[in-house]
Amino acid sequence: MNIPGYTHGTPEVARSPVTLADFDRMKQSVLFGDDDIAWLRRSHDIVADQVEPILDVWYGFVGANAHLLASFTDPKTGAPLGEYLAAVRRRFGRWILDTSRAQYDQAWLDYQHEIGRRHHRTAKNLTDGATSTAIVPFRDLFALVFPITFTLRPFLASRGAAPEEVDAMYAAWVKSCLLQVTLWAHPYVKDGDF
Amino acid sequence: MNIPGYTHGTPEVARSPVTLADFDRMKQSVLFGDDDIAWLRRSHDIVADQVEPILDVWYGFVGANAHLLASFTDPKTGAPLGEYLAAVRRRFGRWILDTSRAQYDQAWLDYQHEIGRRHHRTAKNLTDGATSTAIVPFRDLFALVFPITFTLRPFLASRGAAPEEVDAMYAAWVKSCLLQVTLWAHPYVKDGDF
Repeated sequence: MNIPGYTHGTPEVARSPVTLADFDRMKQSVLFGDDDIAWLRRSHDIVADQVEPILDVWYGFVGANAHLLASFTDPKTGAPLGEYLAAVRRRFGRWILDTSRAQYDQAWLDYQHEIGRRHHRTAKNLTDGATSTAIVPFRDLFALVFPITFTLRPFLASRGAAPEEVDAMYAAWVKSCLLQVTLWAHPYVKDGDF
Repeated sequence: MNIPGYTHGTPEVARSPVTLADFDRMKQSVLFGDDDIAWLRRSHDIVADQVEPILDVWYGFVGANAHLLASFTDPKTGAPLGEYLAAVRRRFGRWILDTSRAQYDQAWLDYQHEIGRRHHRTAKNLTDGATSTAIVPFRDLFALVFPITFTLRPFLASRGAAPEEVDAMYAAWVKSCLLQVTLWAHPYVKDGDF
Protein backbone atom coordinates (compact mmCIF):
# COMPACT_ATOMS: atom_id res chain seq x y z
CA MET A 1 0.00 0.00 0.00
CA ASN A 2 1.63 3.20 -1.18
CA ILE A 3 0.85 6.16 1.08
CA PRO A 4 2.04 9.51 -0.32
CA GLY A 5 4.56 11.13 2.00
CA TYR A 6 4.97 8.06 4.20
CA THR A 7 8.75 7.82 4.10
CA HIS A 8 9.40 5.56 7.11
CA GLY A 9 12.50 3.47 6.46
CA THR A 10 13.54 5.34 3.32
CA PRO A 11 16.77 7.30 2.72
CA GLU A 12 14.65 10.49 2.56
CA VAL A 13 14.43 10.47 6.36
CA ALA A 14 17.30 12.11 8.22
CA ARG A 15 18.90 10.61 11.30
CA SER A 16 17.15 11.48 14.55
CA PRO A 17 19.12 13.75 16.90
CA VAL A 18 17.95 11.42 19.68
CA THR A 19 19.95 8.19 20.01
CA LEU A 20 18.59 4.76 20.85
CA ALA A 21 20.50 5.01 24.14
CA ASP A 22 18.71 8.30 24.91
CA PHE A 23 15.45 6.64 24.00
CA ASP A 24 16.15 3.74 26.34
CA ARG A 25 16.44 6.18 29.23
CA MET A 26 13.25 7.93 28.15
CA LYS A 27 11.52 4.53 28.25
CA GLN A 28 12.67 4.12 31.85
CA SER A 29 11.25 7.55 32.73
CA VAL A 30 7.80 6.58 31.44
CA LEU A 31 7.93 3.03 32.88
CA PHE A 32 7.86 1.52 29.38
CA GLY A 33 9.12 -2.07 29.37
CA ASP A 34 9.10 -5.18 27.21
CA ASP A 35 5.64 -5.96 28.57
CA ASP A 36 4.40 -2.74 26.96
CA ILE A 37 5.87 -3.81 23.62
CA ALA A 38 3.95 -7.06 24.00
CA TRP A 39 0.69 -5.26 24.89
CA LEU A 40 1.02 -2.90 21.96
CA ARG A 41 1.50 -5.86 19.64
CA ARG A 42 -1.46 -7.58 21.27
CA SER A 43 -3.50 -4.51 20.26
CA HIS A 44 -2.33 -4.62 16.64
CA ASP A 45 -5.00 -6.87 15.17
CA ILE A 46 -7.67 -5.19 17.29
CA VAL A 47 -6.90 -1.69 15.99
CA ALA A 48 -5.96 -2.81 12.46
CA ASP A 49 -9.51 -4.00 12.07
CA GLN A 50 -10.93 -0.60 13.13
CA VAL A 51 -8.59 2.03 11.69
CA GLU A 52 -11.25 3.99 9.82
CA PRO A 53 -13.78 4.22 12.68
CA ILE A 54 -10.94 5.22 15.04
CA LEU A 55 -9.88 7.97 12.64
CA ASP A 56 -13.52 9.06 12.33
CA VAL A 57 -13.60 9.66 16.10
CA TRP A 58 -10.26 11.49 16.14
CA TYR A 59 -11.08 13.64 13.12
CA GLY A 60 -14.49 14.33 14.65
CA PHE A 61 -12.78 15.66 17.78
CA VAL A 62 -10.37 17.85 15.82
CA GLY A 63 -13.18 19.08 13.57
CA ALA A 64 -15.28 20.04 16.59
CA ASN A 65 -12.52 22.28 18.01
CA ALA A 66 -11.76 25.34 15.88
CA HIS A 67 -8.37 25.89 17.53
CA LEU A 68 -7.33 22.33 16.55
CA LEU A 69 -8.89 22.35 13.08
CA ALA A 70 -6.93 25.58 12.46
CA SER A 71 -3.80 23.52 11.71
CA PHE A 72 -5.65 22.08 8.69
CA THR A 73 -7.14 25.34 7.41
CA ASP A 74 -6.00 27.97 4.95
CA PRO A 75 -5.16 30.91 7.24
CA LYS A 76 -6.27 33.38 4.54
CA THR A 77 -9.79 32.03 4.21
CA GLY A 78 -10.17 30.02 7.42
CA ALA A 79 -11.51 27.15 5.31
CA PRO A 80 -10.46 23.54 6.05
CA LEU A 81 -8.21 22.04 3.37
CA GLY A 82 -9.89 18.80 2.37
CA GLU A 83 -6.99 17.33 0.43
CA TYR A 84 -4.55 18.10 3.24
CA LEU A 85 -6.88 16.53 5.81
CA ALA A 86 -7.22 13.43 3.63
CA ALA A 87 -3.48 13.08 2.97
CA VAL A 88 -2.62 13.37 6.66
CA ARG A 89 -5.40 10.94 7.51
CA ARG A 90 -3.85 8.16 5.40
CA ARG A 91 -0.53 8.54 7.23
CA PHE A 92 -2.37 8.82 10.57
CA GLY A 93 -3.99 5.45 9.86
CA ARG A 94 -0.61 3.98 9.16
CA TRP A 95 0.66 5.54 12.41
CA ILE A 96 -1.92 3.50 14.32
CA LEU A 97 -0.47 0.32 12.81
CA ASP A 98 3.15 1.36 13.33
CA THR A 99 2.49 2.27 16.99
CA SER A 100 0.92 -1.12 17.62
CA ARG A 101 3.62 -3.02 15.70
CA ALA A 102 6.08 -1.47 18.16
CA GLN A 103 9.26 -1.96 16.14
CA TYR A 104 10.91 0.94 17.91
CA ASP A 105 14.28 0.72 16.15
CA GLN A 106 16.54 3.30 14.48
CA ALA A 107 14.31 3.63 11.39
CA TRP A 108 11.30 4.20 13.63
CA LEU A 109 13.21 6.72 15.76
CA ASP A 110 14.30 8.61 12.66
CA TYR A 111 10.75 8.71 11.35
CA GLN A 112 9.47 10.09 14.66
CA HIS A 113 11.78 13.03 14.18
CA GLU A 114 10.41 13.47 10.67
CA ILE A 115 6.87 13.48 12.06
CA GLY A 116 7.97 16.19 14.52
CA ARG A 117 9.41 18.29 11.69
CA ARG A 118 6.09 18.03 9.88
CA HIS A 119 4.23 19.38 12.91
CA HIS A 120 6.79 22.13 13.42
CA ARG A 121 7.35 25.11 11.13
CA THR A 122 10.51 23.36 9.87
CA ALA A 123 8.49 21.22 7.47
CA LYS A 124 4.75 21.66 8.04
CA ASN A 125 2.75 21.60 4.77
CA LEU A 126 5.80 20.63 2.74
CA THR A 127 4.99 16.94 2.29
CA ASP A 128 1.53 17.67 0.93
CA GLY A 129 2.18 21.06 -0.68
CA ALA A 130 -0.53 22.43 1.62
CA THR A 131 -1.30 26.13 2.10
CA SER A 132 -2.10 25.81 5.80
CA THR A 133 -0.84 27.43 9.00
CA ALA A 134 2.92 27.49 9.64
CA ILE A 135 2.98 25.28 12.75
CA VAL A 136 0.93 23.03 15.00
CA PRO A 137 1.27 24.95 18.28
CA PHE A 138 3.28 23.20 20.97
CA ARG A 139 0.57 23.84 23.56
CA ASP A 140 -1.76 21.21 22.07
CA LEU A 141 0.73 18.43 21.28
CA PHE A 142 0.77 16.66 24.63
CA ALA A 143 -2.79 17.63 25.57
CA LEU A 144 -4.02 15.50 22.65
CA VAL A 145 -2.43 12.38 24.13
CA PHE A 146 -5.42 12.16 26.46
CA PRO A 147 -8.32 12.30 23.97
CA ILE A 148 -6.44 10.15 21.45
CA THR A 149 -5.90 7.35 23.94
CA PHE A 150 -9.13 7.79 25.90
CA THR A 151 -11.23 7.45 22.75
CA LEU A 152 -9.11 4.49 21.61
CA ARG A 153 -9.99 2.55 24.72
CA PRO A 154 -13.50 1.42 23.66
CA PHE A 155 -11.97 0.13 20.43
CA LEU A 156 -9.38 -1.83 22.41
CA ALA A 157 -12.22 -3.25 24.50
CA SER A 158 -14.46 -4.18 21.57
CA ARG A 159 -12.84 -7.47 20.58
CA GLY A 160 -13.28 -9.54 23.67
CA ALA A 161 -10.09 -8.82 25.62
CA ALA A 162 -10.44 -9.11 29.40
CA PRO A 163 -10.72 -5.81 31.33
CA GLU A 164 -7.19 -6.15 32.74
CA GLU A 165 -5.87 -6.79 29.21
CA VAL A 166 -7.64 -3.65 27.98
CA ASP A 167 -6.09 -1.72 30.88
CA ALA A 168 -2.62 -3.01 29.95
CA MET A 169 -3.02 -2.21 26.24
CA TYR A 170 -4.37 1.22 27.12
CA ALA A 171 -1.45 1.99 29.46
CA ALA A 172 1.05 0.86 26.80
CA TRP A 173 -0.59 3.17 24.28
CA VAL A 174 -0.47 6.12 26.70
CA LYS A 175 3.23 5.53 27.39
CA SER A 176 4.03 5.10 23.70
CA CYS A 177 2.22 8.34 22.85
CA LEU A 178 4.06 10.25 25.59
CA LEU A 179 7.37 8.95 24.21
CA GLN A 180 6.46 9.67 20.61
CA VAL A 181 5.16 13.18 21.21
CA THR A 182 8.31 13.93 23.20
CA LEU A 183 10.33 12.88 20.15
CA TRP A 184 8.06 14.96 17.90
CA ALA A 185 8.62 18.00 20.12
CA HIS A 186 12.38 18.04 19.47
CA PRO A 187 12.21 20.72 16.72
CA TYR A 188 10.20 22.98 19.07
CA VAL A 189 12.75 22.84 21.89
CA LYS A 190 15.63 25.29 22.22
CA ASP A 191 19.06 23.99 21.28
CA GLY A 192 20.61 22.10 24.17
CA ASP A 193 17.42 21.93 26.24
CA PHE A 194 16.07 18.60 24.98
CA MET B 1 2.89 26.68 57.00
CA ASN B 2 5.82 28.56 55.54
CA ILE B 3 7.54 26.66 52.72
CA PRO B 4 10.81 28.28 51.59
CA GLY B 5 10.61 29.27 47.93
CA TYR B 6 6.89 28.63 47.63
CA THR B 7 5.88 31.97 46.13
CA HIS B 8 2.45 31.11 44.73
CA GLY B 9 0.21 34.19 44.86
CA THR B 10 3.00 36.59 45.82
CA PRO B 11 4.26 39.62 43.85
CA GLU B 12 7.56 37.76 43.33
CA VAL B 13 5.91 35.68 40.61
CA ALA B 14 5.86 37.20 37.13
CA ARG B 15 2.84 37.11 34.84
CA SER B 16 2.52 33.94 32.77
CA PRO B 17 3.03 34.41 29.03
CA VAL B 18 0.02 32.09 28.64
CA THR B 19 -3.37 33.78 29.11
CA LEU B 20 -6.41 32.28 30.80
CA ALA B 21 -8.09 32.30 27.35
CA ASP B 22 -5.18 30.24 25.95
CA PHE B 23 -5.49 27.92 28.92
CA ASP B 24 -9.22 27.47 28.29
CA ARG B 25 -8.45 26.21 24.79
CA MET B 26 -5.73 23.92 26.14
CA LYS B 27 -8.35 22.48 28.52
CA GLN B 28 -10.56 21.69 25.54
CA SER B 29 -7.65 19.93 23.83
CA VAL B 30 -7.15 17.61 26.80
CA LEU B 31 -10.91 17.13 27.43
CA PHE B 32 -10.63 18.84 30.81
CA GLY B 33 -14.03 20.04 32.04
CA ASP B 34 -15.76 21.20 35.21
CA ASP B 35 -16.27 17.55 36.12
CA ASP B 36 -12.48 17.18 36.27
CA ILE B 37 -12.26 20.14 38.63
CA ALA B 38 -14.81 18.40 40.83
CA TRP B 39 -12.93 15.06 40.71
CA LEU B 40 -9.63 16.73 41.57
CA ARG B 41 -11.29 18.40 44.56
CA ARG B 42 -12.85 15.09 45.53
CA SER B 43 -9.28 13.72 45.66
CA HIS B 44 -8.03 16.53 47.89
CA ASP B 45 -8.73 15.02 51.29
CA ILE B 46 -7.62 11.60 50.06
CA VAL B 47 -4.18 12.80 48.96
CA ALA B 48 -3.80 15.40 51.73
CA ASP B 49 -3.86 12.55 54.20
CA GLN B 50 -1.06 10.68 52.34
CA VAL B 51 1.33 13.36 51.08
CA GLU B 52 4.46 11.90 52.68
CA PRO B 53 3.94 8.28 51.54
CA ILE B 54 3.13 9.55 48.02
CA LEU B 55 6.34 11.57 47.99
CA ASP B 56 8.24 8.53 49.29
CA VAL B 57 7.10 6.57 46.22
CA TRP B 58 7.92 9.38 43.78
CA TYR B 59 11.31 10.10 45.34
CA GLY B 60 12.00 6.37 45.36
CA PHE B 61 11.39 6.24 41.62
CA VAL B 62 13.62 9.24 40.93
CA GLY B 63 16.30 7.89 43.24
CA ALA B 64 16.25 4.53 41.44
CA ASN B 65 16.97 6.13 38.05
CA ALA B 66 20.38 7.78 37.78
CA HIS B 67 19.37 9.89 34.77
CA LEU B 68 16.50 11.36 36.80
CA LEU B 69 18.40 11.74 40.06
CA ALA B 70 21.04 13.64 38.06
CA SER B 71 18.90 16.79 38.26
CA PHE B 72 19.41 16.74 42.04
CA THR B 73 23.14 15.98 42.04
CA ASP B 74 26.25 18.08 42.05
CA PRO B 75 27.61 17.59 38.52
CA LYS B 76 31.19 17.92 39.80
CA THR B 77 30.95 15.05 42.28
CA GLY B 78 27.86 13.18 41.07
CA ALA B 79 26.62 13.18 44.66
CA PRO B 80 22.92 13.83 45.42
CA LEU B 81 22.32 17.15 47.15
CA GLY B 82 20.32 16.31 50.27
CA GLU B 83 19.26 19.83 51.15
CA TYR B 84 18.14 20.53 47.58
CA LEU B 85 16.15 17.28 47.48
CA ALA B 86 14.52 18.17 50.80
CA ALA B 87 13.68 21.75 49.80
CA VAL B 88 12.09 20.65 46.53
CA ARG B 89 10.22 17.89 48.34
CA ARG B 90 8.40 20.36 50.59
CA ARG B 91 7.17 22.32 47.57
CA PHE B 92 6.34 19.08 45.76
CA GLY B 93 4.09 18.13 48.67
CA ARG B 94 2.38 21.48 48.43
CA TRP B 95 2.01 20.90 44.66
CA ILE B 96 -0.05 17.78 45.41
CA LEU B 97 -2.44 19.89 47.47
CA ASP B 98 -2.58 22.73 44.94
CA THR B 99 -3.27 20.33 42.07
CA SER B 100 -6.14 18.75 43.97
CA ARG B 101 -7.54 22.09 45.15
CA ALA B 102 -7.82 22.96 41.46
CA GLN B 103 -8.07 26.73 41.78
CA TYR B 104 -6.70 27.20 38.30
CA ASP B 105 -6.87 31.00 38.22
CA GLN B 106 -4.40 33.72 37.17
CA ALA B 107 -2.23 33.31 40.29
CA TRP B 108 -2.05 29.56 39.69
CA LEU B 109 -1.25 30.07 36.00
CA ASP B 110 1.53 32.50 36.90
CA TYR B 111 2.99 30.05 39.39
CA GLN B 112 3.00 27.25 36.81
CA HIS B 113 5.26 29.42 34.69
CA GLU B 114 7.50 29.96 37.69
CA ILE B 115 7.67 26.18 38.22
CA GLY B 116 8.68 25.84 34.56
CA ARG B 117 11.43 28.41 34.97
CA ARG B 118 12.75 26.46 37.94
CA HIS B 119 13.01 23.29 35.84
CA HIS B 120 14.59 25.15 32.94
CA ARG B 121 18.07 26.68 32.92
CA THR B 122 16.40 30.09 33.33
CA ALA B 123 16.06 29.62 37.08
CA LYS B 124 17.03 26.09 38.10
CA ASN B 125 18.88 25.97 41.48
CA LEU B 126 18.26 29.68 42.09
CA THR B 127 15.43 29.31 44.63
CA ASP B 128 17.45 26.96 46.82
CA GLY B 129 20.95 28.20 46.07
CA ALA B 130 21.74 24.68 44.86
CA THR B 131 24.89 23.65 43.00
CA SER B 132 23.15 21.14 40.77
CA THR B 133 22.84 20.58 37.00
CA ALA B 134 21.78 23.51 34.83
CA ILE B 135 18.47 22.09 33.58
CA VAL B 136 15.96 19.27 33.93
CA PRO B 137 16.09 17.88 30.38
CA PHE B 138 12.93 18.34 28.35
CA ARG B 139 12.92 14.68 27.32
CA ASP B 140 11.83 13.49 30.77
CA LEU B 141 9.22 16.13 31.63
CA PHE B 142 6.18 14.54 30.00
CA ALA B 143 7.38 10.97 30.40
CA LEU B 144 7.13 11.43 34.17
CA VAL B 145 3.41 12.17 33.92
CA PHE B 146 2.84 8.43 33.62
CA PRO B 147 4.71 7.15 36.70
CA ILE B 148 3.55 10.11 38.80
CA THR B 149 -0.11 9.42 38.09
CA PHE B 150 0.12 5.64 37.86
CA THR B 151 1.70 5.40 41.30
CA LEU B 152 -0.82 7.89 42.68
CA ARG B 153 -3.71 5.64 41.71
CA PRO B 154 -3.45 3.17 44.62
CA PHE B 155 -3.46 6.13 47.00
CA LEU B 156 -6.62 7.47 45.33
CA ALA B 157 -8.16 4.01 45.74
CA SER B 158 -7.16 3.56 49.39
CA ARG B 159 -9.92 5.58 51.05
CA GLY B 160 -13.02 3.70 49.99
CA ALA B 161 -13.97 5.50 46.75
CA ALA B 162 -15.82 3.32 44.24
CA PRO B 163 -13.75 2.02 41.28
CA GLU B 164 -15.46 4.39 38.82
CA GLU B 165 -14.74 7.29 41.18
CA VAL B 166 -11.07 6.28 41.33
CA ASP B 167 -11.02 6.12 37.51
CA ALA B 168 -12.50 9.62 37.30
CA MET B 169 -10.06 11.08 39.85
CA TYR B 170 -7.17 9.38 38.08
CA ALA B 171 -8.21 10.72 34.67
CA ALA B 172 -8.56 14.24 36.09
CA TRP B 173 -5.06 13.99 37.55
CA VAL B 174 -3.60 12.81 34.23
CA LYS B 175 -5.24 15.69 32.37
CA SER B 176 -4.16 18.22 34.97
CA CYS B 177 -0.57 16.98 34.81
CA LEU B 178 -0.53 17.16 31.00
CA LEU B 179 -1.78 20.75 31.20
CA GLN B 180 0.65 21.72 33.92
CA VAL B 181 3.72 20.18 32.31
CA THR B 182 2.77 21.90 29.06
CA LEU B 183 2.77 25.21 30.96
CA TRP B 184 6.10 24.27 32.60
CA ALA B 185 7.60 23.58 29.18
CA HIS B 186 7.11 27.15 27.99
CA PRO B 187 10.69 28.28 28.78
CA TYR B 188 12.05 25.30 26.80
CA VAL B 189 10.10 26.11 23.62
CA LYS B 190 11.46 28.36 20.89
CA ASP B 191 9.98 31.85 20.69
CA GLY B 192 6.70 31.81 18.81
CA ASP B 193 6.33 28.04 18.76
CA PHE B 194 4.31 27.57 21.98
